[in-house]
Amino acid sequence: MGSIDIDAVDADALRAKIAKQATSPAHEARLLCRHNLLTNTSGAAPGFLQANLLVLPSKYAGHFRDLCLRNPVSCPLLGVTSPGDPHTVSPAGCIKSPDFDLRTDFPKYRVYKGGKFVGSRTNLLDVWTPDHVGFLIGCSFSFEDALTAAGLQPRHQITGSVVSMFRSNIPVLPAGVFSGAKCIVSMRPYRPEDLERVRDVTRPFLSTHGEPVAWGYDGAKEIGIEDVTKPDFGEPQVFEEGEVPVFWACGVTPQMVVESAGDKVEGLVFAHEPGHMLVTDWTTGDLEKLRSGVGGS
Amino acid sequence: MGSIDIDAVDADALRAKIAKQATSPAHEARLLCRHNLLTNTSGAAPGFLQANLLVLPSKYAGHFRDLCLRNPVSCPLLGVTSPGDPHTVSPAGCIKSPDFDLRTDFPKYRVYKGGKFVGSRTNLLDVWTPDHVGFLIGCSFSFEDALTAAGLQPRHQITGSVVSMFRSNIPVLPAGVFSGAKCIVSMRPYRPEDLERVRDVTRPFLSTHGEPVAWGYDGAKEIGIEDVTKPDFGEPQVFEEGEVPVFWACGVTPQMVVESAGDKVEGLVFAHEPGHMLVTDWTTGDLEKLRSGVGGS
Repeated sequence: MGSIDIDAVDADALRAKIAKQATSPAHEARLLCRHNLLTNTSGAAPGFLQANLLVLPSKYAGHFRDLCLRNPVSCPLLGVTSPGDPHTVSPAGCIKSPDFDLRTDFPKYRVYKGGKFVGSRTNLLDVWTPDHVGFLIGCSFSFEDALTAAGLQPRHQITGSVVSMFRSNIPVLPAGVFSGAKCIVSMRPYRPEDLERVRDVTRPFLSTHGEPVAWGYDGAKEIGIEDVTKPDFGEPQVFEEGEVPVFWACGVTPQMVVESAGDKVEGLVFAHEPGHMLVTDWTTGDLEKLRSGVGGS
Repeated sequence: MGSIDIDAVDADALRAKIAKQATSPAHEARLLCRHNLLTNTSGAAPGFLQANLLVLPSKYAGHFRDLCLRNPVSCPLLGVTSPGDPHTVSPAGCIKSPDFDLRTDFPKYRVYKGGKFVGSRTNLLDVWTPDHVGFLIGCSFSFEDALTAAGLQPRHQITGSVVSMFRSNIPVLPAGVFSGAKCIVSMRPYRPEDLERVRDVTRPFLSTHGEPVAWGYDGAKEIGIEDVTKPDFGEPQVFEEGEVPVFWACGVTPQMVVESAGDKVEGLVFAHEPGHMLVTDWTTGDLEKLRSGVGGS
Protein backbone atom coordinates (compact mmCIF):
# COMPACT_ATOMS: atom_id res chain seq x y z
CA MET A 1 0.00 0.00 0.00
CA GLY A 2 1.30 3.50 -0.90
CA SER A 3 0.78 6.61 1.20
CA ILE A 4 -2.65 8.15 1.21
CA ASP A 5 -2.98 11.59 -0.42
CA ILE A 6 -5.30 13.34 2.07
CA ASP A 7 -5.94 16.30 -0.28
CA ALA A 8 -6.93 14.01 -3.11
CA VAL A 9 -9.31 12.09 -0.86
CA ASP A 10 -10.86 15.34 0.40
CA ALA A 11 -11.13 16.67 -3.14
CA ASP A 12 -12.75 13.44 -4.33
CA ALA A 13 -15.19 13.52 -1.43
CA LEU A 14 -16.01 17.14 -2.19
CA ARG A 15 -16.45 16.33 -5.88
CA ALA A 16 -18.86 13.53 -4.98
CA LYS A 17 -20.81 15.83 -2.65
CA ILE A 18 -21.00 18.52 -5.33
CA ALA A 19 -22.18 16.00 -7.94
CA LYS A 20 -24.97 15.01 -5.56
CA GLN A 21 -26.01 18.60 -4.69
CA ALA A 22 -25.84 20.08 -8.17
CA THR A 23 -29.12 20.72 -9.95
CA SER A 24 -27.56 20.78 -13.45
CA PRO A 25 -24.18 20.21 -15.16
CA ALA A 26 -23.78 24.03 -15.23
CA HIS A 27 -24.45 24.31 -11.49
CA GLU A 28 -22.00 21.47 -10.86
CA ALA A 29 -19.31 23.24 -12.89
CA ARG A 30 -19.88 26.46 -10.93
CA LEU A 31 -19.61 24.63 -7.61
CA LEU A 32 -16.37 22.95 -8.74
CA CYS A 33 -14.99 26.38 -9.69
CA ARG A 34 -16.13 27.82 -6.34
CA HIS A 35 -14.06 25.17 -4.55
CA ASN A 36 -11.15 25.52 -6.98
CA LEU A 37 -11.60 21.95 -8.19
CA LEU A 38 -11.92 23.21 -11.77
CA THR A 39 -9.72 25.95 -13.22
CA ASN A 40 -9.63 26.20 -17.01
CA THR A 41 -13.31 25.80 -17.94
CA SER A 42 -12.70 24.87 -21.59
CA GLY A 43 -14.89 21.83 -22.33
CA ALA A 44 -16.78 22.00 -19.02
CA ALA A 45 -20.56 21.33 -19.16
CA PRO A 46 -20.91 21.07 -22.95
CA GLY A 47 -23.99 22.78 -24.37
CA PHE A 48 -24.04 25.47 -21.67
CA LEU A 49 -22.85 28.96 -22.65
CA GLN A 50 -19.81 30.25 -20.78
CA ALA A 51 -19.24 33.88 -19.82
CA ASN A 52 -16.47 36.42 -19.42
CA LEU A 53 -16.73 38.89 -16.53
CA LEU A 54 -16.39 42.60 -15.95
CA VAL A 55 -17.31 44.17 -12.60
CA LEU A 56 -17.50 47.96 -12.28
CA PRO A 57 -18.55 50.57 -9.71
CA SER A 58 -22.25 51.34 -10.38
CA LYS A 59 -21.67 54.87 -11.71
CA TYR A 60 -20.04 53.39 -14.83
CA ALA A 61 -22.63 50.63 -15.34
CA GLY A 62 -24.84 52.65 -17.72
CA HIS A 63 -21.93 53.62 -19.95
CA PHE A 64 -20.60 50.06 -19.99
CA ARG A 65 -24.04 48.64 -20.80
CA ASP A 66 -24.20 51.06 -23.75
CA LEU A 67 -20.73 49.97 -24.83
CA CYS A 68 -21.86 46.33 -24.87
CA LEU A 69 -25.02 47.18 -26.83
CA ARG A 70 -22.93 49.14 -29.35
CA ASN A 71 -20.28 46.40 -29.68
CA PRO A 72 -22.18 43.12 -29.42
CA VAL A 73 -19.65 41.12 -31.44
CA SER A 74 -16.78 41.65 -28.98
CA CYS A 75 -18.95 42.37 -25.90
CA PRO A 76 -22.23 40.37 -26.15
CA LEU A 77 -24.19 40.75 -22.90
CA LEU A 78 -25.48 37.49 -21.38
CA GLY A 79 -26.54 38.98 -18.03
CA VAL A 80 -26.02 41.74 -15.45
CA THR A 81 -26.16 41.67 -11.64
CA SER A 82 -28.20 44.16 -9.62
CA PRO A 83 -25.94 46.77 -7.94
CA GLY A 84 -24.26 45.21 -4.93
CA ASP A 85 -26.05 41.87 -5.22
CA PRO A 86 -23.61 39.16 -6.32
CA HIS A 87 -26.28 36.44 -6.14
CA THR A 88 -28.85 37.62 -8.68
CA VAL A 89 -28.41 37.95 -12.44
CA SER A 90 -30.87 39.53 -14.86
CA PRO A 91 -32.36 38.03 -17.04
CA ALA A 92 -33.10 35.16 -14.65
CA GLY A 93 -32.47 32.56 -17.38
CA CYS A 94 -28.75 33.30 -17.22
CA ILE A 95 -28.33 31.80 -13.72
CA LYS A 96 -31.35 29.81 -12.59
CA SER A 97 -29.94 28.35 -9.38
CA PRO A 98 -30.36 30.45 -6.19
CA ASP A 99 -27.05 28.95 -5.05
CA PHE A 100 -24.86 31.43 -6.95
CA ASP A 101 -22.14 33.88 -6.01
CA LEU A 102 -20.45 35.98 -8.68
CA ARG A 103 -17.55 36.55 -6.25
CA THR A 104 -16.60 32.87 -6.05
CA ASP A 105 -18.08 30.96 -8.99
CA PHE A 106 -15.42 31.90 -11.53
CA PRO A 107 -12.22 29.87 -11.00
CA LYS A 108 -9.98 32.93 -11.01
CA TYR A 109 -10.28 36.74 -11.12
CA ARG A 110 -8.16 39.72 -12.10
CA VAL A 111 -8.18 43.06 -10.26
CA TYR A 112 -7.68 46.43 -12.03
CA LYS A 113 -7.07 49.88 -10.55
CA GLY A 114 -6.88 53.05 -12.67
CA GLY A 115 -6.91 50.89 -15.80
CA LYS A 116 -3.92 48.80 -14.64
CA PHE A 117 -3.86 45.11 -13.72
CA VAL A 118 -2.82 44.86 -10.06
CA GLY A 119 -3.24 41.17 -9.25
CA SER A 120 -5.11 37.86 -9.53
CA ARG A 121 -7.20 36.07 -6.88
CA THR A 122 -9.41 33.01 -6.57
CA ASN A 123 -12.40 34.96 -5.19
CA LEU A 124 -13.62 38.55 -4.74
CA LEU A 125 -15.09 38.13 -1.24
CA ASP A 126 -12.91 40.73 0.49
CA VAL A 127 -12.72 43.31 -2.35
CA TRP A 128 -16.37 43.32 -3.51
CA THR A 129 -18.47 46.32 -2.38
CA PRO A 130 -22.25 46.88 -2.32
CA ASP A 131 -21.66 49.37 -5.14
CA HIS A 132 -20.27 46.86 -7.66
CA VAL A 133 -22.17 45.70 -10.76
CA GLY A 134 -21.17 42.56 -12.68
CA PHE A 135 -21.48 42.11 -16.45
CA LEU A 136 -21.45 38.60 -17.97
CA ILE A 137 -20.21 38.58 -21.55
CA GLY A 138 -20.41 35.73 -24.09
CA CYS A 139 -17.36 33.51 -24.58
CA SER A 140 -15.96 31.68 -27.60
CA PHE A 141 -15.76 28.38 -25.67
CA SER A 142 -19.48 28.17 -26.52
CA PHE A 143 -18.96 27.89 -30.27
CA GLU A 144 -15.85 25.71 -30.01
CA ASP A 145 -18.05 22.75 -28.99
CA ALA A 146 -20.02 23.27 -32.18
CA LEU A 147 -16.86 23.43 -34.31
CA THR A 148 -15.63 20.19 -32.75
CA ALA A 149 -19.00 18.50 -33.33
CA ALA A 150 -18.73 19.53 -37.02
CA GLY A 151 -15.30 17.91 -37.34
CA LEU A 152 -13.56 21.29 -37.17
CA GLN A 153 -11.95 21.04 -33.73
CA PRO A 154 -9.88 24.15 -32.95
CA ARG A 155 -6.13 23.47 -33.10
CA HIS A 156 -5.41 24.71 -29.56
CA GLN A 157 -7.80 22.09 -28.18
CA ILE A 158 -5.96 19.32 -30.04
CA THR A 159 -2.50 20.55 -28.97
CA GLY A 160 -3.60 21.44 -25.44
CA SER A 161 -2.43 25.04 -25.76
CA VAL A 162 -4.08 28.41 -25.07
CA VAL A 163 -5.74 30.00 -28.12
CA SER A 164 -3.72 32.81 -29.78
CA MET A 165 -5.10 36.31 -29.12
CA PHE A 166 -4.09 39.53 -30.88
CA ARG A 167 -4.68 43.25 -30.51
CA SER A 168 -6.52 44.27 -33.72
CA ASN A 169 -7.18 47.72 -35.18
CA ILE A 170 -10.96 47.18 -35.07
CA PRO A 171 -12.29 50.05 -32.93
CA VAL A 172 -14.51 49.36 -29.94
CA LEU A 173 -17.13 52.07 -30.59
CA PRO A 174 -17.08 54.49 -27.65
CA ALA A 175 -19.73 54.90 -24.94
CA GLY A 176 -19.40 57.55 -22.24
CA VAL A 177 -16.13 57.25 -20.28
CA PHE A 178 -15.16 54.22 -22.34
CA SER A 179 -13.37 55.29 -25.52
CA GLY A 180 -10.24 54.56 -27.51
CA ALA A 181 -10.11 50.76 -27.10
CA LYS A 182 -9.51 48.25 -29.90
CA CYS A 183 -10.94 44.73 -30.22
CA ILE A 184 -8.96 41.72 -29.12
CA VAL A 185 -9.37 38.83 -31.56
CA SER A 186 -8.75 35.11 -31.10
CA MET A 187 -7.18 33.12 -33.96
CA ARG A 188 -7.67 29.52 -35.10
CA PRO A 189 -5.96 28.07 -38.22
CA TYR A 190 -8.18 26.42 -40.85
CA ARG A 191 -7.88 25.21 -44.44
CA PRO A 192 -9.31 27.69 -46.98
CA GLU A 193 -11.71 25.01 -48.25
CA ASP A 194 -13.20 24.71 -44.75
CA LEU A 195 -13.69 28.44 -44.29
CA GLU A 196 -17.33 28.69 -45.38
CA ARG A 197 -18.26 25.76 -43.10
CA VAL A 198 -16.38 27.35 -40.21
CA ARG A 199 -18.31 30.59 -40.83
CA ASP A 200 -21.65 28.73 -41.10
CA VAL A 201 -21.10 26.72 -37.90
CA THR A 202 -20.24 29.76 -35.76
CA ARG A 203 -22.77 32.17 -37.35
CA PRO A 204 -25.73 31.24 -35.09
CA PHE A 205 -23.63 32.00 -31.97
CA LEU A 206 -24.43 35.73 -32.21
CA SER A 207 -24.36 36.13 -28.43
CA THR A 208 -20.96 34.44 -28.08
CA HIS A 209 -18.98 36.37 -30.77
CA GLY A 210 -20.62 34.61 -33.74
CA GLU A 211 -18.90 34.17 -37.08
CA PRO A 212 -15.32 35.33 -37.79
CA VAL A 213 -14.52 39.03 -38.19
CA ALA A 214 -11.64 38.41 -40.65
CA TRP A 215 -9.80 35.51 -42.34
CA GLY A 216 -6.76 34.77 -44.48
CA TYR A 217 -3.44 36.60 -44.55
CA ASP A 218 -4.99 39.61 -46.30
CA GLY A 219 -7.69 39.65 -43.64
CA ALA A 220 -5.00 39.61 -40.94
CA LYS A 221 -3.28 42.66 -42.48
CA GLU A 222 -6.63 44.42 -42.88
CA ILE A 223 -7.22 44.23 -39.10
CA GLY A 224 -3.65 45.26 -38.30
CA ILE A 225 -2.02 41.90 -37.56
CA GLU A 226 1.39 41.54 -39.24
CA ASP A 227 2.66 38.26 -37.76
CA VAL A 228 0.12 35.57 -36.91
CA THR A 229 2.79 33.48 -35.17
CA LYS A 230 3.36 36.14 -32.49
CA PRO A 231 0.19 36.52 -30.42
CA ASP A 232 -0.20 39.33 -27.87
CA PHE A 233 -1.89 36.89 -25.46
CA GLY A 234 -2.14 33.10 -25.30
CA GLU A 235 0.21 30.82 -27.21
CA PRO A 236 1.36 30.54 -30.86
CA GLN A 237 -0.61 27.98 -32.87
CA VAL A 238 0.73 25.31 -35.23
CA PHE A 239 -0.23 25.99 -38.87
CA GLU A 240 -0.43 22.91 -41.08
CA GLU A 241 0.40 23.28 -44.77
CA GLY A 242 -1.94 25.60 -46.62
CA GLU A 243 -3.86 26.68 -43.52
CA VAL A 244 -4.80 30.32 -43.04
CA PRO A 245 -5.61 32.31 -39.89
CA VAL A 246 -9.28 32.85 -38.98
CA PHE A 247 -10.11 35.58 -36.45
CA TRP A 248 -13.05 35.95 -34.08
CA ALA A 249 -13.84 38.80 -31.68
CA CYS A 250 -12.70 37.88 -28.17
CA GLY A 251 -14.14 38.42 -24.70
CA VAL A 252 -10.84 39.76 -23.39
CA THR A 253 -11.85 43.01 -25.17
CA PRO A 254 -13.70 44.44 -22.12
CA GLN A 255 -10.42 44.33 -20.17
CA MET A 256 -8.85 46.48 -22.92
CA VAL A 257 -11.80 48.86 -22.59
CA VAL A 258 -10.99 49.25 -18.89
CA GLU A 259 -7.28 49.72 -19.64
CA SER A 260 -8.11 52.42 -22.21
CA ALA A 261 -10.39 54.25 -19.76
CA GLY A 262 -7.45 54.37 -17.30
CA ASP A 263 -7.87 56.92 -14.50
CA LYS A 264 -11.30 57.94 -15.77
CA VAL A 265 -12.63 54.93 -13.84
CA GLU A 266 -12.27 55.36 -10.06
CA GLY A 267 -12.47 52.37 -7.73
CA LEU A 268 -11.57 48.73 -8.20
CA VAL A 269 -12.59 46.86 -11.34
CA PHE A 270 -12.65 43.06 -11.55
CA ALA A 271 -12.52 40.70 -14.49
CA HIS A 272 -12.12 36.95 -15.05
CA GLU A 273 -8.71 35.44 -15.63
CA PRO A 274 -8.57 34.55 -19.34
CA GLY A 275 -9.65 30.92 -19.86
CA HIS A 276 -11.29 30.85 -16.42
CA MET A 277 -14.96 31.43 -17.23
CA LEU A 278 -18.36 31.17 -15.62
CA VAL A 279 -20.58 28.34 -16.83
CA THR A 280 -24.06 29.92 -17.17
CA ASP A 281 -27.48 28.26 -17.37
CA TRP A 282 -28.03 29.58 -20.91
CA THR A 283 -27.73 26.74 -23.42
CA THR A 284 -27.13 26.59 -27.15
CA GLY A 285 -30.93 26.17 -27.34
CA ASP A 286 -31.26 29.76 -26.09
CA LEU A 287 -29.09 31.21 -28.88
CA GLU A 288 -31.95 32.26 -31.16
CA LYS A 289 -33.71 33.96 -28.24
CA LEU A 290 -30.51 35.69 -27.10
CA ARG A 291 -29.66 36.93 -30.61
CA SER A 292 -26.80 39.39 -30.19
CA GLY A 293 -27.20 39.64 -26.43
CA VAL A 294 -29.62 40.78 -23.74
CA GLY A 295 -30.49 44.42 -23.10
CA GLY A 296 -29.01 44.41 -19.63
CA SER A 297 -32.15 45.72 -17.94
CA MET B 1 -56.75 88.36 -60.26
CA GLY B 2 -53.69 86.36 -61.30
CA SER B 3 -53.81 82.99 -63.07
CA ILE B 4 -54.82 79.99 -61.05
CA ASP B 5 -52.13 77.30 -60.54
CA ILE B 6 -54.17 74.14 -60.97
CA ASP B 7 -51.39 71.87 -59.61
CA ALA B 8 -51.06 73.99 -56.48
CA VAL B 9 -54.79 73.90 -55.90
CA ASP B 10 -54.84 70.14 -56.37
CA ALA B 11 -51.87 69.72 -54.09
CA ASP B 12 -53.44 71.91 -51.43
CA ALA B 13 -56.70 69.99 -51.70
CA LEU B 14 -54.81 66.71 -51.40
CA ARG B 15 -52.85 68.02 -48.41
CA ALA B 16 -56.10 68.99 -46.70
CA LYS B 17 -57.60 65.57 -47.42
CA ILE B 18 -54.50 63.83 -46.07
CA ALA B 19 -54.52 65.97 -42.91
CA LYS B 20 -58.13 64.89 -42.34
CA GLN B 21 -57.52 61.18 -43.02
CA ALA B 22 -54.25 60.82 -41.08
CA THR B 23 -54.38 59.09 -37.72
CA SER B 24 -51.09 60.60 -36.46
CA PRO B 25 -48.42 63.11 -37.56
CA ALA B 26 -46.30 60.12 -38.66
CA HIS B 27 -49.12 58.68 -40.77
CA GLU B 28 -49.69 62.15 -42.28
CA ALA B 29 -45.99 62.43 -43.20
CA ARG B 30 -46.09 58.98 -44.84
CA LEU B 31 -49.19 59.90 -46.87
CA LEU B 32 -47.54 63.14 -48.01
CA CYS B 33 -44.48 61.15 -49.10
CA ARG B 34 -46.72 58.62 -50.88
CA HIS B 35 -48.20 61.45 -52.95
CA ASN B 36 -44.83 63.14 -53.45
CA LEU B 37 -45.96 66.22 -51.52
CA LEU B 38 -42.99 65.80 -49.14
CA THR B 39 -39.50 64.90 -50.34
CA ASN B 40 -36.67 65.60 -47.88
CA THR B 41 -38.11 64.35 -44.57
CA SER B 42 -35.68 66.27 -42.34
CA GLY B 43 -37.77 67.93 -39.63
CA ALA B 44 -41.00 66.10 -40.55
CA ALA B 45 -43.19 64.85 -37.67
CA PRO B 46 -40.83 65.77 -34.80
CA GLY B 47 -40.58 63.15 -32.05
CA PHE B 48 -41.18 60.25 -34.44
CA LEU B 49 -38.17 58.10 -35.42
CA GLN B 50 -37.28 58.07 -39.10
CA ALA B 51 -35.87 55.07 -40.96
CA ASN B 52 -33.46 54.19 -43.75
CA LEU B 53 -34.43 51.33 -46.06
CA LEU B 54 -32.83 48.24 -47.54
CA VAL B 55 -34.91 45.69 -49.50
CA LEU B 56 -33.37 42.34 -50.44
CA PRO B 57 -34.44 39.05 -52.02
CA SER B 58 -35.50 36.75 -49.15
CA LYS B 59 -32.53 34.36 -49.46
CA TYR B 60 -30.23 37.11 -48.16
CA ALA B 61 -32.56 38.28 -45.38
CA GLY B 62 -31.04 36.04 -42.67
CA HIS B 63 -27.50 37.16 -43.42
CA PHE B 64 -28.53 40.81 -43.54
CA ARG B 65 -30.42 40.51 -40.24
CA ASP B 66 -27.25 39.06 -38.69
CA LEU B 67 -25.23 41.92 -40.16
CA CYS B 68 -27.57 44.45 -38.51
CA LEU B 69 -27.41 42.63 -35.16
CA ARG B 70 -23.60 42.58 -35.37
CA ASN B 71 -23.35 46.24 -36.41
CA PRO B 72 -26.12 48.02 -34.49
CA VAL B 73 -24.36 51.41 -34.45
CA SER B 74 -24.36 51.81 -38.24
CA CYS B 75 -27.29 49.45 -38.96
CA PRO B 76 -29.78 49.58 -36.04
CA LEU B 77 -32.90 47.58 -36.94
CA LEU B 78 -36.23 49.32 -36.34
CA GLY B 79 -38.40 46.80 -38.18
CA VAL B 80 -38.59 44.15 -40.91
CA THR B 81 -41.37 43.25 -43.37
CA SER B 82 -42.62 39.70 -43.85
CA PRO B 83 -41.35 38.23 -47.14
CA GLY B 84 -43.35 39.66 -50.01
CA ASP B 85 -45.73 41.67 -47.81
CA PRO B 86 -45.02 45.41 -48.18
CA HIS B 87 -47.87 46.35 -45.81
CA THR B 88 -46.82 44.68 -42.54
CA VAL B 89 -43.80 45.48 -40.38
CA SER B 90 -42.61 43.51 -37.38
CA PRO B 91 -42.57 44.54 -34.53
CA ALA B 92 -46.03 46.05 -34.98
CA GLY B 93 -45.06 49.17 -33.00
CA CYS B 94 -42.90 50.33 -35.90
CA ILE B 95 -45.87 50.98 -38.22
CA LYS B 96 -49.21 50.94 -36.40
CA SER B 97 -51.44 52.12 -39.24
CA PRO B 98 -52.86 49.41 -41.57
CA ASP B 99 -52.69 52.03 -44.33
CA PHE B 100 -49.01 51.45 -45.14
CA ASP B 101 -47.07 50.51 -48.24
CA LEU B 102 -43.28 50.17 -48.09
CA ARG B 103 -43.22 50.55 -51.90
CA THR B 104 -44.68 54.07 -51.88
CA ASP B 105 -44.32 55.62 -48.43
CA PHE B 106 -40.70 56.71 -48.80
CA PRO B 107 -40.42 59.86 -50.95
CA LYS B 108 -37.74 58.38 -53.19
CA TYR B 109 -35.96 55.06 -53.77
CA ARG B 110 -32.72 53.81 -55.28
CA VAL B 111 -32.38 50.56 -57.26
CA TYR B 112 -29.24 48.37 -57.17
CA LYS B 113 -28.26 45.44 -59.37
CA GLY B 114 -25.12 43.35 -58.79
CA GLY B 115 -23.98 45.87 -56.18
CA LYS B 116 -24.30 48.80 -58.58
CA PHE B 117 -26.72 51.75 -58.42
CA VAL B 118 -28.87 51.61 -61.55
CA GLY B 119 -31.47 54.35 -60.99
CA SER B 120 -33.87 56.26 -58.73
CA ARG B 121 -37.67 56.15 -58.65
CA THR B 122 -40.54 57.57 -56.60
CA ASN B 123 -42.10 54.16 -55.88
CA LEU B 124 -41.28 50.45 -56.13
CA LEU B 125 -44.69 49.26 -57.37
CA ASP B 126 -43.48 47.76 -60.65
CA VAL B 127 -40.14 46.33 -59.45
CA TRP B 128 -41.21 44.79 -56.10
CA THR B 129 -41.61 40.99 -56.07
CA PRO B 130 -43.35 38.66 -53.59
CA ASP B 131 -39.84 37.49 -52.64
CA HIS B 132 -38.60 40.86 -51.36
CA VAL B 133 -37.96 41.62 -47.66
CA GLY B 134 -37.63 45.18 -46.38
CA PHE B 135 -35.37 46.28 -43.51
CA LEU B 136 -36.00 49.58 -41.71
CA ILE B 137 -32.86 51.03 -40.16
CA GLY B 138 -32.56 53.90 -37.66
CA CYS B 139 -31.74 57.39 -38.97
CA SER B 140 -29.79 60.30 -37.49
CA PHE B 141 -32.65 62.73 -38.18
CA SER B 142 -34.07 61.30 -34.95
CA PHE B 143 -31.30 62.64 -32.72
CA GLU B 144 -30.94 65.93 -34.59
CA ASP B 145 -34.25 67.11 -33.09
CA ALA B 146 -32.77 66.43 -29.66
CA LEU B 147 -29.56 68.32 -30.46
CA THR B 148 -31.61 71.30 -31.66
CA ALA B 149 -33.76 71.19 -28.52
CA ALA B 150 -30.54 71.30 -26.45
CA GLY B 151 -29.32 74.43 -28.26
CA LEU B 152 -26.89 72.39 -30.36
CA GLN B 153 -28.59 72.59 -33.76
CA PRO B 154 -26.55 70.82 -36.45
CA ARG B 155 -24.84 73.25 -38.82
CA HIS B 156 -26.33 71.76 -41.99
CA GLN B 157 -29.82 72.49 -40.67
CA ILE B 158 -28.89 76.15 -40.08
CA THR B 159 -27.27 76.55 -43.49
CA GLY B 160 -29.87 74.46 -45.32
CA SER B 161 -27.28 72.08 -46.74
CA VAL B 162 -26.97 68.28 -46.81
CA VAL B 163 -24.92 66.82 -43.94
CA SER B 164 -21.35 65.81 -44.89
CA MET B 165 -20.80 62.04 -45.15
CA PHE B 166 -17.47 60.22 -45.40
CA ARG B 167 -16.22 56.72 -46.08
CA SER B 168 -14.43 55.69 -42.85
CA ASN B 169 -12.05 52.80 -42.18
CA ILE B 170 -14.35 51.36 -39.47
CA PRO B 171 -15.13 47.83 -40.64
CA VAL B 172 -18.72 46.63 -40.94
CA LEU B 173 -18.29 43.23 -39.28
CA PRO B 174 -19.15 40.55 -41.85
CA ALA B 175 -22.22 38.29 -41.90
CA GLY B 176 -22.65 35.61 -44.56
CA VAL B 177 -22.49 37.01 -48.11
CA PHE B 178 -22.03 40.50 -46.72
CA SER B 179 -18.34 41.19 -46.08
CA GLY B 180 -15.69 43.79 -46.76
CA ALA B 181 -17.76 46.96 -46.26
CA LYS B 182 -16.71 50.01 -44.23
CA CYS B 183 -18.94 52.34 -42.22
CA ILE B 184 -20.17 55.60 -43.67
CA VAL B 185 -20.09 58.38 -41.06
CA SER B 186 -21.90 61.72 -40.98
CA MET B 187 -20.06 64.81 -39.70
CA ARG B 188 -21.25 67.86 -37.77
CA PRO B 189 -18.90 70.64 -36.53
CA TYR B 190 -19.01 71.53 -32.82
CA ARG B 191 -16.92 73.51 -30.33
CA PRO B 192 -14.67 71.30 -28.17
CA GLU B 193 -16.33 72.66 -25.03
CA ASP B 194 -19.72 71.38 -26.27
CA LEU B 195 -18.45 67.90 -27.09
CA GLU B 196 -19.46 66.16 -23.85
CA ARG B 197 -22.96 67.66 -24.08
CA VAL B 198 -23.25 66.58 -27.71
CA ARG B 199 -22.23 63.06 -26.66
CA ASP B 200 -24.67 63.05 -23.72
CA VAL B 201 -27.63 64.28 -25.80
CA THR B 202 -27.20 61.66 -28.54
CA ARG B 203 -26.20 58.74 -26.25
CA PRO B 204 -29.77 57.58 -25.49
CA PHE B 205 -30.51 57.26 -29.23
CA LEU B 206 -28.94 53.78 -29.35
CA SER B 207 -31.37 52.62 -32.04
CA THR B 208 -30.66 55.63 -34.29
CA HIS B 209 -26.81 55.58 -34.31
CA GLY B 210 -26.44 56.93 -30.74
CA GLU B 211 -23.40 58.90 -29.60
CA PRO B 212 -20.49 59.84 -31.89
CA VAL B 213 -17.98 57.19 -33.02
CA ALA B 214 -15.07 59.69 -33.24
CA TRP B 215 -14.35 63.40 -32.75
CA GLY B 216 -11.63 66.00 -33.25
CA TYR B 217 -8.98 66.10 -35.97
CA ASP B 218 -7.08 63.21 -34.38
CA GLY B 219 -10.31 61.25 -34.28
CA ALA B 220 -10.85 61.98 -37.99
CA LYS B 221 -7.37 60.61 -38.86
CA GLU B 222 -7.98 57.59 -36.62
CA ILE B 223 -11.03 56.60 -38.71
CA GLY B 224 -9.23 57.30 -41.99
CA ILE B 225 -10.57 60.75 -42.88
CA GLU B 226 -7.80 63.09 -44.07
CA ASP B 227 -9.77 66.15 -45.21
CA VAL B 228 -13.00 66.99 -43.38
CA THR B 229 -13.86 69.66 -45.98
CA LYS B 230 -14.15 67.08 -48.78
CA PRO B 231 -17.06 64.75 -48.03
CA ASP B 232 -17.67 61.62 -50.12
CA PHE B 233 -21.44 62.29 -50.00
CA GLY B 234 -23.54 65.33 -49.09
CA GLU B 235 -22.08 68.84 -48.92
CA PRO B 236 -19.06 70.46 -47.21
CA GLN B 237 -19.91 72.10 -43.88
CA VAL B 238 -18.87 75.54 -42.63
CA PHE B 239 -16.49 75.34 -39.65
CA GLU B 240 -16.54 78.33 -37.31
CA GLU B 241 -13.35 79.26 -35.50
CA GLY B 242 -12.14 76.58 -33.11
CA GLU B 243 -14.77 74.03 -34.12
CA VAL B 244 -13.82 70.39 -34.60
CA PRO B 245 -15.48 67.61 -36.60
CA VAL B 246 -17.75 65.14 -34.77
CA PHE B 247 -18.62 61.87 -36.50
CA TRP B 248 -21.62 59.58 -36.14
CA ALA B 249 -22.32 56.25 -37.85
CA CYS B 250 -24.64 56.80 -40.81
CA GLY B 251 -27.57 54.85 -42.25
CA VAL B 252 -26.13 55.03 -45.77
CA THR B 253 -23.80 52.22 -44.59
CA PRO B 254 -26.21 49.41 -45.67
CA GLN B 255 -25.93 50.65 -49.27
CA MET B 256 -22.14 50.25 -49.01
CA VAL B 257 -22.75 46.72 -47.69
CA VAL B 258 -24.72 45.95 -50.85
CA GLU B 259 -22.06 47.53 -53.06
CA SER B 260 -19.34 45.43 -51.34
CA ALA B 261 -21.35 42.23 -51.82
CA GLY B 262 -21.51 43.00 -55.57
CA ASP B 263 -22.43 40.02 -57.73
CA LYS B 264 -22.82 37.78 -54.69
CA VAL B 265 -26.35 39.22 -54.38
CA GLU B 266 -28.60 38.17 -57.29
CA GLY B 267 -31.82 40.05 -58.06
CA LEU B 268 -32.81 43.66 -57.53
CA VAL B 269 -32.02 45.45 -54.28
CA PHE B 270 -33.79 48.66 -53.23
CA ALA B 271 -32.80 51.40 -50.80
CA HIS B 272 -34.05 54.87 -49.87
CA GLU B 273 -32.62 57.94 -51.55
CA PRO B 274 -30.37 59.62 -48.93
CA GLY B 275 -32.35 62.26 -47.01
CA HIS B 276 -35.65 60.73 -48.16
CA MET B 277 -36.69 58.65 -45.17
CA LEU B 278 -39.69 56.81 -43.80
CA VAL B 279 -41.38 58.40 -40.78
CA THR B 280 -42.17 55.45 -38.47
CA ASP B 281 -44.61 55.23 -35.55
CA TRP B 282 -41.76 54.65 -33.09
CA THR B 283 -41.23 57.77 -30.96
CA THR B 284 -38.37 59.03 -28.82
CA GLY B 285 -40.41 57.58 -25.93
CA ASP B 286 -39.70 54.11 -27.35
CA LEU B 287 -35.91 54.56 -27.32
CA GLU B 288 -35.26 52.79 -24.01
CA LYS B 289 -37.40 49.84 -25.13
CA LEU B 290 -35.71 49.69 -28.53
CA ARG B 291 -32.18 49.85 -27.04
CA SER B 292 -29.79 49.08 -29.89
CA GLY B 293 -32.55 47.84 -32.21
CA VAL B 294 -35.10 45.07 -32.56
CA GLY B 295 -34.22 41.45 -33.26
CA GLY B 296 -35.90 41.40 -36.63
CA SER B 297 -38.07 38.39 -35.89
